Amino acid sequence: MRDLRPLLAPTSIAIVGASSRPHTVASRPLTNLQQVGYSGDIYLINPNSPEIAGVRCYPNLDELPGVPDVALVVLPSKHVMPTLESCARLGVKAAVVVSAGFAETGREGAEAQARMRELSREHGLVICGPNSLGVINFVDRIPLTFGSVTDMNHAPGGRVGLVSQSGGLLVGLANRAFDAGVNISYGVATGNEADLDLTEALHYLAEDPHTDVLVAVIESIRNGPRFFSLCDRLMELKKPLIAYKIARSELGSAAALSHTGALAGSYETLQAVFRQKGVIEAGDIDELFALAGACSAGRLPQGPGIGVITDSGGAGAIVADRAEDLGLTVPTLAEDTVKRLKEFVPPFATGEVSNPFDATAAISENPASVGPMSQAFLDDSAIDGLVVITAGSGEPGKARFTALLEHVSSTPKPIFGVTLAGSSADLPYQALRSANIPAYHSSGKAVESMAALLHFSRALERHRIGSRDRERTGLKTDEFQETLEALGEAPTEYDSKCFLKKCGIPVVDERLATSAEEAVSKAESLGFPVVLKIQSPQIIHKTEAGGIRLDLGNPKDVESAFEAIMNQVKETAPAADISGILVSRMLPTPLELIAGIHSDPTFGPLVLFGLGGIWVEVFDEAAMRPAPVTAEDIADMVGQLRGVSLLRGARNMPVVKPEAIESLLLTLSDIAQAAGESLTGIDINPLVPTVEGDLVALDASVFTKKQETDN
Amino acid sequence: MRDLRPLLAPTSIAIVGASSRPHTVASRPLTNLQQVGYSGDIYLINPNSPEIAGVRCYPNLDELPGVPDVALVVLPSKHVMPTLESCARLGVKAAVVVSAGFAETGREGAEAQARMRELSREHGLVICGPNSLGVINFVDRIPLTFGSVTDMNHAPGGRVGLVSQSGGLLVGLANRAFDAGVNISYGVATGNEADLDLTEALHYLAEDPHTDVLVAVIESIRNGPRFFSLCDRLMELKKPLIAYKIARSELGSAAALSHTGALAGSYETLQAVFRQKGVIEAGDIDELFALAGACSAGRLPQGPGIGVITDSGGAGAIVADRAEDLGLTVPTLAEDTVKRLKEFVPPFATGEVSNPFDATAAISENPASVGPMSQAFLDDSAIDGLVVITAGSGEPGKARFTALLEHVSSTPKPIFGVTLAGSSADLPYQALRSANIPAYHSSGKAVESMAALLHFSRALERHRIGSRDRERTGLKTDEFQETLEALGEAPTEYDSKCFLKKCGIPVVDERLATSAEEAVSKAESLGFPVVLKIQSPQIIHKTEAGGIRLDLGNPKDVESAFEAIMNQVKETAPAADISGILVSRMLPTPLELIAGIHSDPTFGPLVLFGLGGIWVEVFDEAAMRPAPVTAEDIADMVGQLRGVSLLRGARNMPVVKPEAIESLLLTLSDIAQAAGESLTGIDINPLVPTVEGDLVALDASVFTKKQETDN
Repeated sequence: MRDLRPLLAPTSIAIVGASSRPHTVASRPLTNLQQVGYSGDIYLINPNSPEIAGVRCYPNLDELPGVPDVALVVLPSKHVMPTLESCARLGVKAAVVVSAGFAETGREGAEAQARMRELSREHGLVICGPNSLGVINFVDRIPLTFGSVTDMNHAPGGRVGLVSQSGGLLVGLANRAFDAGVNISYGVATGNEADLDLTEALHYLAEDPHTDVLVAVIESIRNGPRFFSLCDRLMELKKPLIAYKIARSELGSAAALSHTGALAGSYETLQAVFRQKGVIEAGDIDELFALAGACSAGRLPQGPGIGVITDSGGAGAIVADRAEDLGLTVPTLAEDTVKRLKEFVPPFATGEVSNPFDATAAISENPASVGPMSQAFLDDSAIDGLVVITAGSGEPGKARFTALLEHVSSTPKPIFGVTLAGSSADLPYQALRSANIPAYHSSGKAVESMAALLHFSRALERHRIGSRDRERTGLKTDEFQETLEALGEAPTEYDSKCFLKKCGIPVVDERLATSAEEAVSKAESLGFPVVLKIQSPQIIHKTEAGGIRLDLGNPKDVESAFEAIMNQVKETAPAADISGILVSRMLPTPLELIAGIHSDPTFGPLVLFGLGGIWVEVFDEAAMRPAPVTAEDIADMVGQLRGVSLLRGARNMPVVKPEAIESLLLTLSDIAQAAGESLTGIDINPLVPTVEGDLVALDASVFTKKQETDN
Repeated sequence: MRDLRPLLAPTSIAIVGASSRPHTVASRPLTNLQQVGYSGDIYLINPNSPEIAGVRCYPNLDELPGVPDVALVVLPSKHVMPTLESCARLGVKAAVVVSAGFAETGREGAEAQARMRELSREHGLVICGPNSLGVINFVDRIPLTFGSVTDMNHAPGGRVGLVSQSGGLLVGLANRAFDAGVNISYGVATGNEADLDLTEALHYLAEDPHTDVLVAVIESIRNGPRFFSLCDRLMELKKPLIAYKIARSELGSAAALSHTGALAGSYETLQAVFRQKGVIEAGDIDELFALAGACSAGRLPQGPGIGVITDSGGAGAIVADRAEDLGLTVPTLAEDTVKRLKEFVPPFATGEVSNPFDATAAISENPASVGPMSQAFLDDSAIDGLVVITAGSGEPGKARFTALLEHVSSTPKPIFGVTLAGSSADLPYQALRSANIPAYHSSGKAVESMAALLHFSRALERHRIGSRDRERTGLKTDEFQETLEALGEAPTEYDSKCFLKKCGIPVVDERLATSAEEAVSKAESLGFPVVLKIQSPQIIHKTEAGGIRLDLGNPKDVESAFEAIMNQVKETAPAADISGILVSRMLPTPLELIAGIHSDPTFGPLVLFGLGGIWVEVFDEAAMRPAPVTAEDIADMVGQLRGVSLLRGARNMPVVKPEAIESLLLTLSDIAQAAGESLTGIDINPLVPTVEGDLVALDASVFTKKQETDN
């Protein structure tokens, strides 16, 4: 890992292109550094001024009395490369290139950016940018940016590291974090990423002792494997990464392309990666900080059960609503818990003691009771996290949370405080914040945070199990490679299915026939009814070519179907090489499923499973995970399908055995791993359940390296 | 409409049960009134104290020197009824009952609450509560509550009226509105609603000149027709209602039941009502105020096209992402617009002029250019609303919005301002707020507001067209009533379909047969293949009773199927009255649809349309609207289905004619209207498209008043 200290915590800074014209990109960085009282050396490079704001100017980098740690470059684009070359020559360790006009402007700019990258690689110069808003260090109070950093003198440094591919958002986000009581350690806007990219910046911050939680604003991940390494390292460090993906849509991607020159990756693939790797996805910018606050508190739930103590029944109902939306629960309390809680309920109070617990009477009678009541909830094994809500503001509100804080400091279960008022509840809100308890103004936000923490907690658990158990025998490499190579560049359906069968994937009973007589005898040995399908590398769309006959119930029909297919294909595809006609058992298809391998240019092979046909086309009913997948990943994939009830026997469908799904997807994952880049995709479609709940591939295509998938 | 002025703006107030014990429900109301300097008469009722905080106490209401407008009752529950009786006797016009211990506690409490309701009806006493947090009046600064109202002296009164069924939320919401720059006119917590309910309070505020926008926190609507009247009146007044539904889930409903004693209605039905009537639904509490701010500005979009001017490309991409999520567009700019914008782009700037427009270079060169650039966007007919985003904070940020405000004051199109920073962008943010331009800290929120305004704008348009065009001849009343009555209490499938056919709904060709010979001859006249189905009021589940035979291709099969059904039904349902066996044409079912009437206990009949079978069960693919529906409602229903592409020919499905759907649903709506309460439901399932795209009912049940629907 490269040392980013010269970039993040420089002891000396050169501002190349510094100007005295106020409120400009070229003048603001010096103003910012002076405002926070930066104690290191500041060198200004400006051949036309002797000094700016009391700081001496030098005509160029060579004239400097020392070598700065970092150069902040605010020059017009054409002057950038010569400056970076000087930096490299003089031994400057890092540069922040604020200047725009590179890959985002087209080919010429992209070429200049590529030269910048080469320079960085050759000389070990860390370059942040071009088109970067800069770098901000709240730990040592060093702003390397033209953005506004008025809050840096007030913000305690740490513990949330922020990396944004959208520069415009960086400083605003830091300010919003400050407002939300979330303390940033470092912020990096990676801009066009000629050299330093989002993943490297996050990786460095992950190892940083001032940083416990990472927040990323992502347009696109450039290198999948390095991102996976980051995620695995975060699991080891138990540090959560909260990500907000922008440019999700086609429109959004187009907008992003025009401003940083990077093509946004597929949002679906990225979501699959997030889901597997425990990355917490924020739905919008506001959520970023709610989640960062929850993560900073450092307590993780071990299950989905939320306990609620509230003095507003409505706010309690909102918790239950959001819990149901997000797959969490509001469990029934243990008898002992109810008994303990009842002691605090005054005799005149009405209603039962249940969860959510409307404790209005208890609390208004005795605000201090919030403490022991919370303890009773936390002692209940069904409760994995506690939400305490108050409509109280000012001192009465504060009294409730003070009582809470006295009792809960040692619990490992996460606690969330909610004040329903805003500014008038500032006292209780700040009491929570200063005790590092996540605080919100709406109870729904607390539930969203609990769900995010549970997602991370479960990923930690999957990681722990996965790294212990992942000992599948896999495929014997030599034999597998031979089989794979034998597939050639354009395998037919039959070739694909033979390959899958050898790898251990259940395929429908079938035989290849090259004559009508052979087709009949093979049909008889398989049992009727059967299906006939033409096999030719050149015929991709068999139905359109007249190459399929379904539901053939007797030898005569098979014979005439064989002849009919051959005759028709001769007309529709006269030049096709025919390897024969496939005779397959015709199975009932009560439910069509799909499974396969999808190769992503960034993240490599992903295992896919879903409902087939209309389901996946119209309803997007498929789940993906990067290979290799574990049994836990597979259970999570299945649970993600909205139509999961269909796999469990809804509407008289056969109940699909979970172990059949697991075995199939683990095998696909093994194939993807063993084949590496020589395999570009597998489509099993349809995959159908048998009456016994096993799975059988009815049709399949394997795509090898040189073959293009054309549909 | 009742006069609620004595409740909302009393000139004299009695606090019954006032206490001097600080920070209690009984002492806070006086403190609040004194804090805001209430200028009317305050009478305290407390037999044990001569005075509290300088205000004289009276032993009971009878001793008062005058009759107060309103009595605020903070007594234990058992003393409430005698007090209200005194109020009624003395001519007090309104009472706010803060005391709890009524319907939420069980039967006894519910009975007490019912007596309260009777008293109110008999004497014309307006009662708010019991279990109400109170009423707050920001226009005249009158707090009738024990909640904290510290912001009342700072908040300018009006223009958003707030009614909450959750009392605990009211004061917190008012404070959060204040923080968000949204000015409340009146706030009412309706509590258990013994008398005054949410709908009446909203209706009164709708007519109030200080109120332009309504916000409601809803647990359940008690009276559907009155809610519809409110919605229609809001359309006439062009005042939007923003609603947040709590207790959506089963868990949430249970939580709500235990604290106000009201059973929450079906969330799905309520959403259908909202969608038809233009009620804007907020997803959470935070959204309530973002939406209220947008509505307060009073400008409505006429279409979905968003224009974006931004100095952060990332924030522009977020607009595009959210627009795609919410069915809005970010249209291509007209040539002339591009030309006008180009004039402001400095020569060194990079990138194209497009929408979203990354105007960083233009704006940093000349902040005032935001004005004429905005004008260029607003002059473009493709642009229905404009989002202006800046990363700038402090004075530079303010300069941008000042330029905007100078140019846009006369546009009828909505404008949304976004500052990416938080507190450090307070200057530009407040500049927008004080000009009544909705302001946000994240660009996604601006898009959500635009979508909400468009929803309201389209409802206004539907209302305008609907009230002009709704002249369907409908069903001839006498004949229709006869036909309906002829159905009896337990119509068979055949009875139901004859009824629907007479009403003009296309039904599959079919005949009733009472002998095998008759079945054969009817099958022959219909054409093969046919289906046979047993007809008996007692046999609801025909398949289970062995009463169905499908796909009968010739006379012989029909004959033996007839005998087989009769024999089997004799065994499975020996006591059933058999009216015959229905012989129906067997049609292909490439796509199963459903349509019908669902009767909601609160909102009456709703017209339903959707995909059938698995779709509706597993994927919830059905849309509902309260009857009567218009053609515009129907188009909106169809558009709401995620699988709408299947109706438009996706996956080789027949293209269903929009006019076939429209005609069918209008007829169902007419039936529901004409039948009134004597019809409790219609299920057409399946409804299938013909090759020509017409619709045919294959099976249907009509449920009449005395019959229970048992599946």
